[in-house]
Amino acid sequence: MRFTFPLIAIGLEVAIIVLFQLFVQYDTDQHIVQHLNTSKTSDMDRFIELYPLFQDVHVMIFIGFGFLMTFLKKYGFGSVGFNFIIAALGLQWGTIAQGLLHSHGEKIHIGIKSMINADFSTATVLISFGAVLGKTSPIQLLIMTIIEITIFAGNEYLVGEIFKASDIGASMTIHAFGAYFGLAVAGVLYRSGLRRGHENEESVYHSDLFAMIGTLFLWMFWPSFNSAIAEPGDKQYRAIVNTYFSLAACVLTAYAFSSLVTHRGKLDMVHIQNATLAGGVAVGTCADMAINPFGSMIIGGVAGIISVIGFKFLTPFFASKLRIQDTCGVHNLHGLPGIMGGLAGIVAVALGVSDTSTMAMQAAALGSSIGTAIVGGLITGLILKLPIWEQPTDQNCYDDSVYWEVPECTEHDNRFNAHDSHNQLEPEV
Amino acid sequence: MRFTFPLIAIGLEVAIIVLFQLFVQYDTDQHIVQHLNTSKTSDMDRFIELYPLFQDVHVMIFIGFGFLMTFLKKYGFGSVGFNFIIAALGLQWGTIAQGLLHSHGEKIHIGIKSMINADFSTATVLISFGAVLGKTSPIQLLIMTIIEITIFAGNEYLVGEIFKASDIGASMTIHAFGAYFGLAVAGVLYRSGLRRGHENEESVYHSDLFAMIGTLFLWMFWPSFNSAIAEPGDKQYRAIVNTYFSLAACVLTAYAFSSLVTHRGKLDMVHIQNATLAGGVAVGTCADMAINPFGSMIIGGVAGIISVIGFKFLTPFFASKLRIQDTCGVHNLHGLPGIMGGLAGIVAVALGVSDTSTMAMQAAALGSSIGTAIVGGLITGLILKLPIWEQPTDQNCYDDSVYWEVPECTEHDNRFNAHDSHNQLEPEV
Amino acid sequence: MRFTFPLIAIGLEVAIIVLFQLFVQYDTDQHIVQHLNTSKTSDMDRFIELYPLFQDVHVMIFIGFGFLMTFLKKYGFGSVGFNFIIAALGLQWGTIAQGLLHSHGEKIHIGIKSMINADFSTATVLISFGAVLGKTSPIQLLIMTIIEITIFAGNEYLVGEIFKASDIGASMTIHAFGAYFGLAVAGVLYRSGLRRGHENEESVYHSDLFAMIGTLFLWMFWPSFNSAIAEPGDKQYRAIVNTYFSLAACVLTAYAFSSLVTHRGKLDMVHIQNATLAGGVAVGTCADMAINPFGSMIIGGVAGIISVIGFKFLTPFFASKLRIQDTCGVHNLHGLPGIMGGLAGIVAVALGVSDTSTMAMQAAALGSSIGTAIVGGLITGLILKLPIWEQPTDQNCYDDSVYWEVPECTEHDNRFNAHDSHNQLEPEV
Repeated sequence: MRFTFPLIAIGLEVAIIVLFQLFVQYDTDQHIVQHLNTSKTSDMDRFIELYPLFQDVHVMIFIGFGFLMTFLKKYGFGSVGFNFIIAALGLQWGTIAQGLLHSHGEKIHIGIKSMINADFSTATVLISFGAVLGKTSPIQLLIMTIIEITIFAGNEYLVGEIFKASDIGASMTIHAFGAYFGLAVAGVLYRSGLRRGHENEESVYHSDLFAMIGTLFLWMFWPSFNSAIAEPGDKQYRAIVNTYFSLAACVLTAYAFSSLVTHRGKLDMVHIQNATLAGGVAVGTCADMAINPFGSMIIGGVAGIISVIGFKFLTPFFASKLRIQDTCGVHNLHGLPGIMGGLAGIVAVALGVSDTSTMAMQAAALGSSIGTAIVGGLITGLILKLPIWEQPTDQNCYDDSVYWEVPECTEHDNRFNAHDSHNQLEPEV
Repeated sequence: MRFTFPLIAIGLEVAIIVLFQLFVQYDTDQHIVQHLNTSKTSDMDRFIELYPLFQDVHVMIFIGFGFLMTFLKKYGFGSVGFNFIIAALGLQWGTIAQGLLHSHGEKIHIGIKSMINADFSTATVLISFGAVLGKTSPIQLLIMTIIEITIFAGNEYLVGEIFKASDIGASMTIHAFGAYFGLAVAGVLYRSGLRRGHENEESVYHSDLFAMIGTLFLWMFWPSFNSAIAEPGDKQYRAIVNTYFSLAACVLTAYAFSSLVTHRGKLDMVHIQNATLAGGVAVGTCADMAINPFGSMIIGGVAGIISVIGFKFLTPFFASKLRIQDTCGVHNLHGLPGIMGGLAGIVAVALGVSDTSTMAMQAAALGSSIGTAIVGGLITGLILKLPIWEQPTDQNCYDDSVYWEVPECTEHDNRFNAHDSHNQLEPEV
Repeated sequence: MRFTFPLIAIGLEVAIIVLFQLFVQYDTDQHIVQHLNTSKTSDMDRFIELYPLFQDVHVMIFIGFGFLMTFLKKYGFGSVGFNFIIAALGLQWGTIAQGLLHSHGEKIHIGIKSMINADFSTATVLISFGAVLGKTSPIQLLIMTIIEITIFAGNEYLVGEIFKASDIGASMTIHAFGAYFGLAVAGVLYRSGLRRGHENEESVYHSDLFAMIGTLFLWMFWPSFNSAIAEPGDKQYRAIVNTYFSLAACVLTAYAFSSLVTHRGKLDMVHIQNATLAGGVAVGTCADMAINPFGSMIIGGVAGIISVIGFKFLTPFFASKLRIQDTCGVHNLHGLPGIMGGLAGIVAVALGVSDTSTMAMQAAALGSSIGTAIVGGLITGLILKLPIWEQPTDQNCYDDSVYWEVPECTEHDNRFNAHDSHNQLEPEV
């Protein structure tokens, strides 16, 4: 970390500022007031109207994703802190990457939708971050941010502009994409030394409570995520309502199945923190369609079940057989529910509740998102595997003290001991 | 917990989905855009305009109530986790219960007000949950949610549609109702084995900080709670302004009286976490009336005093003499200030600051809310007393490890010891 | 604390209620609906439109500032709890102090802007509170609140109404003012007994995570802070966009320089919690000007660097040479970036991106803000130095147990020991 990390971070920031100077400008006619005398309503008029939804998404990105990952007992700083820098870098890069693709040679204009989309683009990286949490250096994370958002912007352009598929809540382009990208990276970066787990890969009582802050802000604001860039009127209304009910149903089934699959019928915090959100992912693609509240609840309820079962059975299978160590279980929260969302979108189009897309285009969008993610993730993984990015050793995984100044006087005695032993093992990074 | 809890949760969710399929539909003419060419403004036009207020209420329900109750040292998972499932179930059931009463045989249409009202209906159960916190099984909580919201919807219909009383911030129909319902349940479920307290019924340093997250989000967003369904224009404006100033005044008196009644003039976190909110409850009924900012401040200031005094003197009296163990002291935060709010409403009507109700109707609303709550709570308590709901033993009260997988490596040594002894005592639930 | 604190708190509240009765009234023509048939748009129409921005600012004041200061291991109650009462008192007093100056003899009318400005006025005190955190009694804090907001209102009137300078995000009038006021107070209250530090003046693992809650809510909602009272249309739009990008750039440089200046290239939580916010302060004055996104990013990036360097080198220098003990390092988060913001405003005016002010008036505003703050802070410090305000002893600094009931069963053994020794040392306050 001595010089490589700061130089890369500053270099990226300088490069982005130069790109902004060249390509980005204000929307010169940004009427953000709502009280216009004109009868025509343009996207630009909606700045202040959509600003609260943007802020909800903003909270999901920085507090939601950030705290959701603080469940590990010794990786809270890295979870919330690396989340912070990934998202701050990502939103700048996402503004450029998406802007260049959509501006068709003109300057990139900043409006509320470009800001929402910039925040969205960071979500893909934060999902992938969940798969490699605790096993990567900040340098690797900066590199992954730049590459992943570039590929994401390309796939999103393909899905939205070429296939013209519906994916308003981004089940496919963000959730499935981010999950399979992250799993591919995690697969390439497989650490056989951790195949029997790591003593730090567990929570403590209060770290689980910090994680619930993330869960709840994600859960509450998910209707804003799925509706923020929806068409005003009925579609935006439905995106909010459908997501609200899908998530509510998902909570009930996630709790029920958590109890069913856990020792002596208890509830497992891993399920509560994650599977309760699967309904928001799964309803994403068809959130703005007329699937009816009860349809949303079926989608959400099934997603909660699938997600818990994934955590219980698939994650161990992935780690042992497929050699993919998925720290946060993003496959169960974003991968499976994302695929389910894509399939639900195909079914919805087949049932005629949407007239803006075809089954083939929806299927193409799903295939493209997963395919691009896996290929992109494998390539990114190979780049990140180069032994020059100051990776932590196996022993130092899931431990903040490698990259952070950690208070010496910590809250539990076993931290003292852990840190004593670390002082000898700590690598010169 | 082996099968009863999951089966009940899934059964309820399936039943609700069927009811939604039968009775609930979109608002077909949901113009959520605000830039209409029509000059008439309907409720439906206000969807996106009221959406930020809905989200504030949403945060109060899930983060506010959830974290407010995390103050107990070993019951953080149960506080925030059971709060989550109660609210998720409650908002679905509330949509149906309130919708059926107000739809007069037609289909239930989902709009921003029905979503706000659904969130409101969960607040009653979350208040009652505070009274029985740590002493009930999740099965009991699911049952209480269904029964209480049903009775709440009936009383709210009576107050609003029959009495046509004013209660915009729901001092009577939510706060007093939820508190006395919960106290009645707690009275029926009295545990003589806990009459001398329980070693777990206390906070640790960081659990008190988690609780402050809940307090502050409740405090900040309370103006949204009291104004979310107010009439647009002056009334909504006044509901926001009055609540803002009532709460500010309440903080000063709550701190002052906390210091006055506490050993050596110190401040007590229980008072700071709870009594600072009493001003929001007490100003609720007359929040949209022209009581003037200084009037609101008097109401808020007095409420802060009453609440602290309640915590200091009434809660111990309730536990010892009335045999009502009120874990969170909801009587002091919601009960007394709720009654005060109802009385303030009567006075305000008497003083002529409102023309939409009469003193008699306001008094009837207050009496009905408390009466219905007590009768409903007693009946619910008797149902919950049946020895088939996998209640915790006295020894296992206020302890997450009965219903949750708790990390073995916890933050303080005394947890280890507590858990060792628990492993023998833990019931087969 | 036995009687002085409660009597002062109640006395202030009663006095404020009387002043409200005399001077404050509703905006009688408060059309908060947005769907007016009139074509003219007045400030008053914007109540509900600006309400979400007000709530963002509200969250910054109560959660943002409150939790940002919880980093100390034994001062979490005082940080979030004293923040709470300062802000609740301050917003009431700020309403009067600012209202009397701006109402020109008429009654003070409450609107969304007066509520936002009232919240703003509390920010100055909360910044100053950061400089004296852990070394002051609640009585001192109440007195500082009243005096500082009065002086702030005077300087803000001078800057805005007399100089007619631009300072939309209040880099000068809030951030620089609050910082230098607090530093002046801290200088007068210098404690030589703490010149070698204090064993409590450090964080523990979870207190740093609590502080990140504050950091992130401040960071996310800063665009609302800088734009809440901006002119509708282009200016408000630019204030949001510029702040968003300034903050994003600031994160990258703050992380980079934190790693550069810290032992073995690690990241330091103090920098991450604070310096990442400097971009919001520094872009404040010219946030609504046409400085372009890349211009904002340069300002934010430089602010992040200056802030980290300030924490690393200036804070120790201030403590040892200037005898100013700045607990939270407000000089690096608010002081230096505030000056930088003022200077950036002068440069922006010189470059012609704003037509509403002149370089001389901007310079006068900066000088006035710092000068008034230092003089006001020195006078306030002298008043607070009187030995009648129940100050903590040096030994009792940074310790909640002096003014708060602290749970005996705490989370780490070293707290037990610390408390044992305290029981003997605890002063009779």
